[in-house]
Amino acid sequence: MNVLKTQKIRVAVLGPLGTYTHEAAHKVFGDGVEYEERQTISDTFQAIQDTVSIAVVPQENTIFGNVIETYDALRQTGCGFVKGEITLQVQHCLLVQQGVQLHEIEKILSHEQALGQCQDFLNTHLPNATRIRTPSTASAARSLLTSPRNCAAICSKICATLFDGLEVLCTGVQKEANNFTRFYIIVRDREVQLPIGPHRAKSKGLLRLWVPPAPASGTRQKDIVQYLSPSGLSIMRIDRRPSDGGPPFQSVYFVETTDIVGGGSEEPPTSDSWTTLLEEAVSLIRKMGGEVDLIGVW
Amino acid sequence: MNVLKTQKIRVAVLGPLGTYTHEAAHKVFGDGVEYEERQTISDTFQAIQDTVSIAVVPQENTIFGNVIETYDALRQTGCGFVKGEITLQVQHCLLVQQGVQLHEIEKILSHEQALGQCQDFLNTHLPNATRIRTPSTASAARSLLTSPRNCAAICSKICATLFDGLEVLCTGVQKEANNFTRFYIIVRDREVQLPIGPHRAKSKGLLRLWVPPAPASGTRQKDIVQYLSPSGLSIMRIDRRPSDGGPPFQSVYFVETTDIVGGGSEEPPTSDSWTTLLEEAVSLIRKMGGEVDLIGVW
Repeated sequence: MNVLKTQKIRVAVLGPLGTYTHEAAHKVFGDGVEYEERQTISDTFQAIQDTVSIAVVPQENTIFGNVIETYDALRQTGCGFVKGEITLQVQHCLLVQQGVQLHEIEKILSHEQALGQCQDFLNTHLPNATRIRTPSTASAARSLLTSPRNCAAICSKICATLFDGLEVLCTGVQKEANNFTRFYIIVRDREVQLPIGPHRAKSKGLLRLWVPPAPASGTRQKDIVQYLSPSGLSIMRIDRRPSDGGPPFQSVYFVETTDIVGGGSEEPPTSDSWTTLLEEAVSLIRKMGGEVDLIGVW
Repeated sequence: MNVLKTQKIRVAVLGPLGTYTHEAAHKVFGDGVEYEERQTISDTFQAIQDTVSIAVVPQENTIFGNVIETYDALRQTGCGFVKGEITLQVQHCLLVQQGVQLHEIEKILSHEQALGQCQDFLNTHLPNATRIRTPSTASAARSLLTSPRNCAAICSKICATLFDGLEVLCTGVQKEANNFTRFYIIVRDREVQLPIGPHRAKSKGLLRLWVPPAPASGTRQKDIVQYLSPSGLSIMRIDRRPSDGGPPFQSVYFVETTDIVGGGSEEPPTSDSWTTLLEEAVSLIRKMGGEVDLIGVW
């Protein structure tokens, strides 16, 4: 049985176990894989270069926006390849040691994004409590085990069952019920297959496109719209980060595209034809002088 | 003299005085205006609806990325109108009560972005210190006055001169020397003139563009590239936020454009002709069915 266990595919998630990333990964891969907890998003990306086949990282939350650490990793050459997405509804809870009342709480521990999502609740009910950032929501819960009773954690409900001695004091403490997080499934390179089937036709792609700032001379330089327009790709979303190094406020764009290229009645292309379409678009943008990479197909 | 003083134009900045926003505003408006400190970015936006003519808010930092609160305010109808930009090089310092040594520090106070920018320094030199978020870098410095000696603040150097009893323990503690913050100058509506002159020709514009997600039916919907391409505008940058309400991950884009519309030798258009160009682009996008507003000209 041990032999079988070591052969299980390993999936790295932002740990410790009990985070929303773990919950999202479990939604797709279930119990058929082994989950490895990693301390930071950067470590989770590093894992696919080292020991595991697959990593799951948060990409965006509807309230708090893009996850900067994930985009900073995707900005690097050799960051891995996006092979899928997962969307999860987030329901934050206020966890405490058993019996602790709201008025006793003086410190709130959680991940920065969760603190941001719950700031209305915290400003109203715990305006004087100090907010302390932790690497994850689940590590905030775990910290409670060794903290004074005046501490509380914001995390997923599942943490109350993972850690003995904790209980849920309030549920749904986030700003909006309409709170979703979207995750990317990352692999080392595009040849790695996900252990989920049957394989459906691919329909999305992710391009990374550097666009230099306009030169001081005032000559027009190609902008992102001019690079993308001739490709004929249907653009789902464009996200931007300042590029790493170079002049301030230079841009790197992350462009998600879909296979809806024509009218409504058209059949979606097969995986092969979609990948070919994406590669042709990349090639066209490069011919125009654009610095572009295909960093995801799913 | 009092009469004259009350007639001074008032500029709201993220307070307390001593923040980088105050420093940026002072770079443009000098001592000829009165500065009002506001507690949050949202309050700073609110100020131009209430009592002041002008507000200055951070828009992006080269390391930490877009300032979410600013984009969340710009997402709202009636948020104000962008009339200018300021870029400032950021140099963070570690401030302490006089005589405190590095090894004594157990708590670090600062604004979330500054904590993010200095995490490499903190992880190396103060790995066990608790990080506490404050509304601004300057309020972190002010808190030191009433804190135990084991507290330190990350803030601008100017805070050491604003508050007695504090001193700079380390300078340049941010991740990169290449650390810039860009600010927007906001007014209530586009008719408000800035008290700076002579007025140069306008050359930039900011569009806010909502793009609904692709419908489930699979019919192609216009994407951001299709809306922008026919306008002929030169795109400087596109920033995206999830829209407020509606289906998850719907997009609102903020598009900065410039007046570089033709070849290199062309003269920049006059303010009037540039504003007309922008208004024509808005009108064209609306005719295509796009939900768009012009929310800045400078």
